[in-house]
Amino acid sequence: METRIERLLNLMEARSLDGFLVAETKNMLYFTGFSGGSMLLVLRDGESILFVYGVNYEAAKVETREASVELVKQEESLIKKVTDRLKTRKIRNLGFDSLAASTYLKLKESSDGVAFKDASDLVWTLRRVKDPSEISLMKKAAELTSRGMEKAAEIIEAGISEREVAAEIEYEMRKNGSDGVAFETIVSSGSNSAFPHGGCGDRVIKKGDLVVIDIGAKYRDYSSDLTRTFIIGKPSSKQFEIYETVRKAQELAVKTARAKVEAKEVDRVARDYISKAGYGEYFVHSLGHGVGLDVHEPPTLSPKSRDVLVEGNVVTIEPGIYIPGFGGVRIEDTVLILKEGVEKLTESPIQIYF
Amino acid sequence: METRIERLLNLMEARSLDGFLVAETKNMLYFTGFSGGSMLLVLRDGESILFVYGVNYEAAKVETREASVELVKQEESLIKKVTDRLKTRKIRNLGFDSLAASTYLKLKESSDGVAFKDASDLVWTLRRVKDPSEISLMKKAAELTSRGMEKAAEIIEAGISEREVAAEIEYEMRKNGSDGVAFETIVSSGSNSAFPHGGCGDRVIKKGDLVVIDIGAKYRDYSSDLTRTFIIGKPSSKQFEIYETVRKAQELAVKTARAKVEAKEVDRVARDYISKAGYGEYFVHSLGHGVGLDVHEPPTLSPKSRDVLVEGNVVTIEPGIYIPGFGGVRIEDTVLILKEGVEKLTESPIQIYF
Repeated sequence: METRIERLLNLMEARSLDGFLVAETKNMLYFTGFSGGSMLLVLRDGESILFVYGVNYEAAKVETREASVELVKQEESLIKKVTDRLKTRKIRNLGFDSLAASTYLKLKESSDGVAFKDASDLVWTLRRVKDPSEISLMKKAAELTSRGMEKAAEIIEAGISEREVAAEIEYEMRKNGSDGVAFETIVSSGSNSAFPHGGCGDRVIKKGDLVVIDIGAKYRDYSSDLTRTFIIGKPSSKQFEIYETVRKAQELAVKTARAKVEAKEVDRVARDYISKAGYGEYFVHSLGHGVGLDVHEPPTLSPKSRDVLVEGNVVTIEPGIYIPGFGGVRIEDTVLILKEGVEKLTESPIQIYF
Repeated sequence: METRIERLLNLMEARSLDGFLVAETKNMLYFTGFSGGSMLLVLRDGESILFVYGVNYEAAKVETREASVELVKQEESLIKKVTDRLKTRKIRNLGFDSLAASTYLKLKESSDGVAFKDASDLVWTLRRVKDPSEISLMKKAAELTSRGMEKAAEIIEAGISEREVAAEIEYEMRKNGSDGVAFETIVSSGSNSAFPHGGCGDRVIKKGDLVVIDIGAKYRDYSSDLTRTFIIGKPSSKQFEIYETVRKAQELAVKTARAKVEAKEVDRVARDYISKAGYGEYFVHSLGHGVGLDVHEPPTLSPKSRDVLVEGNVVTIEPGIYIPGFGGVRIEDTVLILKEGVEKLTESPIQIYF
């Protein structure tokens, strides 16, 4: 089987790039298995060099695959080491993934005659399709996340604070093998739930609250993403209507998603349903996003997306309705895109009374 | 008292900048109190605009201080909104903090005649000196971190896994008010402890192990950083020698740090002590770094640093010795720089037998 670097080399060739500079940590991890590198230079002839500072050098020697490790000493300049190599290897067209403007300018200045080309899409072409080893890690991350939500359902009640709920969820995931959270846990109650990124504070959950819980365990560098909304006590008719609208919109979108479908079409199905129910203006974000080493990555499921879903994508499907001053509902799962549909990686019952 | 934006305006004037584009999330948070903005444009006449997408718009209206909030609709381009404003306001010299190269190139292309200047140092001039409200939050973060280490000391013993120790530490910090971790918890035992960023895995701690525990609670967006090294059982004479060398180096550095001292001098004191003990080549990182909204920020305490410490800096002091195949020792505290010395924000006994 081709290595990930070999697959990048194929893509580079099609775009006439004779070198590729990887500067984004997650991308270095993807290609080399090591996350402590400072830059990775991939050359057309197949040589790859991971530049590493002393603090990570011993670990790099043990963990790095598919690239040689080169120490950057305290008195040396990383930029100079990279541009020297570009010169001796006569690199003319260099792709890069993601550089800070200041780094980009320094690199350009000290490498005469090299054309720098933003080619992050090449890396995403690879990363957006998960291979079996990645899928297995993502299933584990999703399983831990589902356990966290199970714990939330167990303990949530009037009188407990948002922060206490978050603490118990994170502890449950961690004890069972999670390496930490993929993003800051959201436990957002009452009128806070109307803010999609409502965070988590000291507010004490009350009877009648909507509570949006959005969590993700990380497992061996892979993320997961799951949201459920709880209603504390008997829902009001408006709460019930909003909840059911979001639930059905999510169900429809999940049924629509499969390989070869346009990502914007999946968004449209959910958005249309919510709009017809009269809540279109309150669905203020995209339907979903890819998940992997990053918790937000391509493809994007939004009205303007140009992505087409393919087998091996892992994406969230997460419609929501947020009514300022009243509260919000979001229901989200992480799903694996298959030829004929999806496999839900996260699993948590839809159960609204608590 | 001047607002943070007013203080930025003063610095801009001294450098003849008539606008400043803030693109880094933590910087937007620093100036406006809101972390969900996409870009913040500060204009010389005192007008400041925070551009926000729909998903965060309602929260932005509630939380943003010192800037007006402008919605970026799904069909609109953030870049265009910014460059239009540069045009109508006749901005000529625009400072910026941190832009991705691709964003930088797009902005340049669509804003004729505007000079873009990397001026992130202006923001760091402000952020590196903590004001009383920040110090109070950092004390709370440090206090929570110290409690986490207390829990570690309570539970660590042969037979417990690295991950279990991490789970208990994080749970302790979270229950007591932490908003999460400032960085991935390190519980690195046995020969893993020889890797400064050794992570935390399933390894079961054994008698005779060195265990490096490096943790940080986050509190209201502020970070903290504390490391202790534990020896499980009676230390060997080599373990004891390394431990004592690091302990004394840290003590000397802490005594050296104060306002008006060069950061590299504090590093030198610790490095010299470790070198004289014969372990210089095994101290493979800088002595310390600033802490604040970011866990790694200016000033830098390293041999090459040009920083001079000033009152109100919050920095780590963390010498270490790492011997491949044998293990490592690091001792770290977060300290507040005062006129006549430092105030330790983290507190944890130096106690090596467990």
